[in-house]
Amino acid sequence: MISKENIQNRMIQAVETVKRTNPMAGSITNSVTINFVANAQLAVGGSAAMVYLPDEGEFLAKAGAATYINVGTLLPVYEQTLPRTAKVLHDLSKPWVLDPVAAGFGLLRTELLRQYKEYKPSVIRGNASEIIALAGLWGLDGSSEESHVRGVDSTDSVIAARAAAVALARWTGGAVAVSGKTDLITDGSVIAFSQGGSHFMEKITGSGCSLGGVVAVYATAASPFIAALTASSVYNLAGSRAENEVDGPGSFQTRFLDELYKATAVEIANNPFEIEEV
Amino acid sequence: MISKENIQNRMIQAVETVKRTNPMAGSITNSVTINFVANAQLAVGGSAAMVYLPDEGEFLAKAGAATYINVGTLLPVYEQTLPRTAKVLHDLSKPWVLDPVAAGFGLLRTELLRQYKEYKPSVIRGNASEIIALAGLWGLDGSSEESHVRGVDSTDSVIAARAAAVALARWTGGAVAVSGKTDLITDGSVIAFSQGGSHFMEKITGSGCSLGGVVAVYATAASPFIAALTASSVYNLAGSRAENEVDGPGSFQTRFLDELYKATAVEIANNPFEIEEV
Amino acid sequence: MISKENIQNRMIQAVETVKRTNPMAGSITNSVTINFVANAQLAVGGSAAMVYLPDEGEFLAKAGAATYINVGTLLPVYEQTLPRTAKVLHDLSKPWVLDPVAAGFGLLRTELLRQYKEYKPSVIRGNASEIIALAGLWGLDGSSEESHVRGVDSTDSVIAARAAAVALARWTGGAVAVSGKTDLITDGSVIAFSQGGSHFMEKITGSGCSLGGVVAVYATAASPFIAALTASSVYNLAGSRAENEVDGPGSFQTRFLDELYKATAVEIANNPFEIEEV
Repeated sequence: MISKENIQNRMIQAVETVKRTNPMAGSITNSVTINFVANAQLAVGGSAAMVYLPDEGEFLAKAGAATYINVGTLLPVYEQTLPRTAKVLHDLSKPWVLDPVAAGFGLLRTELLRQYKEYKPSVIRGNASEIIALAGLWGLDGSSEESHVRGVDSTDSVIAARAAAVALARWTGGAVAVSGKTDLITDGSVIAFSQGGSHFMEKITGSGCSLGGVVAVYATAASPFIAALTASSVYNLAGSRAENEVDGPGSFQTRFLDELYKATAVEIANNPFEIEEV
Repeated sequence: MISKENIQNRMIQAVETVKRTNPMAGSITNSVTINFVANAQLAVGGSAAMVYLPDEGEFLAKAGAATYINVGTLLPVYEQTLPRTAKVLHDLSKPWVLDPVAAGFGLLRTELLRQYKEYKPSVIRGNASEIIALAGLWGLDGSSEESHVRGVDSTDSVIAARAAAVALARWTGGAVAVSGKTDLITDGSVIAFSQGGSHFMEKITGSGCSLGGVVAVYATAASPFIAALTASSVYNLAGSRAENEVDGPGSFQTRFLDELYKATAVEIANNPFEIEEV
Repeated sequence: MISKENIQNRMIQAVETVKRTNPMAGSITNSVTINFVANAQLAVGGSAAMVYLPDEGEFLAKAGAATYINVGTLLPVYEQTLPRTAKVLHDLSKPWVLDPVAAGFGLLRTELLRQYKEYKPSVIRGNASEIIALAGLWGLDGSSEESHVRGVDSTDSVIAARAAAVALARWTGGAVAVSGKTDLITDGSVIAFSQGGSHFMEKITGSGCSLGGVVAVYATAASPFIAALTASSVYNLAGSRAENEVDGPGSFQTRFLDELYKATAVEIANNPFEIEEV
């Protein structure tokens, strides 16, 4: 198994490359948290751009070093935009991150997520219920018979999504990140458990979406697994630090962006995580 | 007339139920303040979900314990989404909150708001000009001959909207909340005047929209009148407290979310209000 | 050449008129930064309203004292909304501000920006790459052979856009503001260089968009050149002040809105700028 030190060195390299090169990671994402996604991407050293139209999605897929697709708030035009963008990403072998928000909710969302099976996102990031529901949609192991998605909230635990996460990662050949009290990140053969964060994460909207956007930033400079683990680590570090300074969710969000910005590569790599073989 | 103490006890129950059960109140709302609406709903203990598509609106209406509909920034698809969602809410007798932003402005908005007369929203929340304009659209008493809506701003006083608010509440059988320096909340037979707030409320966008979203959260756990009064009370309390800590609107918004989160049920019920019979 | 003192007196008048009259400047703008645009407009004393639909754009153009159009995130309906709104503004000789975000990116954006040549926006605000690209689209001097737009980022310097800015201002008869380390504002005969700001401006999304929205607010009370210079000055002043108080971009954005709100007319007029003849 890959050593922890090896992983940490790669995380340091990813963070430093991003801070030095300011890579552009475009997004097609929901309107609720779109501002927070962009600000989080900027805070860690990336650059952001968001679009809605089909040709702009294709253009963005080509222009960006990685792309983030979040199906949170679908618009009618997404019926064209999302498959066309994902096809370009897949055909060009460009890294991209899928956030299957509220998987199982609504007809277009279900149809789009089903199509995405063949486009193999480099990283899938979601809460436990979304990961389980997506594995089910794709007919993979680890899906339960019944989805527990309730709007955008997870009602399943991270551990309950372990088999689904591994199955998804093995199908895509990329990585899967399951967000929860302890985050689970896997490439299908190794699982990392990243610790830290804050109870305030659930009291602000977009902590998951913006994490997905930050995974895309790191995916410009690292493998899917390292990108997902690095992003989870800086989120857990910044969340813990911000919680110590505040007494409410408004101040938390503000300080959280500050801490994302201030975290150094070494600090991020040293945020606690454990690894195990699948 | 219902006693003030009785009202306060019901407010305490509403707040405590929400904090304990984390109820989901879905929204179809404008893109300007959609993030603030969600964060305010989370801060008081609720859960948020936003959609645009017709079938997702219907799904959300069924899945949520209450729903918030704000017509601030209309998209073409809303011609289908908004009536279909409201019809489900009405047919299932689910509580829902209508925010008639900029009533009287534009063709689709006028047509949609006209249709909503028959779907009888449980709570209507708006500024004085919007409440007067909506009563006019619905052919009820209390509408003036000329609407004073100027974009999203009110140019009428809360007291000028008293007759319109009472007429709307009597038509719907629910409650109406008119936001202003002192807020007016009525169920058509009792009027409550809720005090507090801050001059900074007008210096941030979405103080009204997010109040509507929070009314929907409390409507999962209380009658329309109690939900509207409880939401107005926590807004006035949090606004007053936040104003004491800041010297500008950026910090105000941050601290306001903190204070929404920190306010206890008893503190909310004790925020000053007066009641009178219509 | 107009004296610096004369310019400063007009800036003071613009700021004081806005603070006294709370003028409404409507916007059609991107969804990423729409909330920040509105909050910045409110912070300096204006009023905000945002729309998407064609008839609402026309209505807003008539109702507002000035209008802000930002092409950052295009929706399909913008094919109708943006030309129809700009036509009303042009036909009624109402001041309006164009933010040609990511000029050169995508088919609809290119077509819309091309059409805008005849509607002659009163103020064009963009980064250097966008200003150069727009001059190229319009077949004016100062465009380079190759656009350096990369998503929403500029890869050209403000000085490189000087000829393009002058050519655009001469074509429209209005003003052009190029945002960068030092901002360049010109009416085609005079150039002002406005100093200040913060390195954090690039670490938050929407510093440029919200500046465009604030230019529209001042355009309700001053000439295009004075409006653009006044807005740039309050941005540079507030940026410098906010930077002194914070250590990260989250807190910066919060304090920046506070400083926009607190800046007085005299302070804004005294923010450092130099003028020269073209």
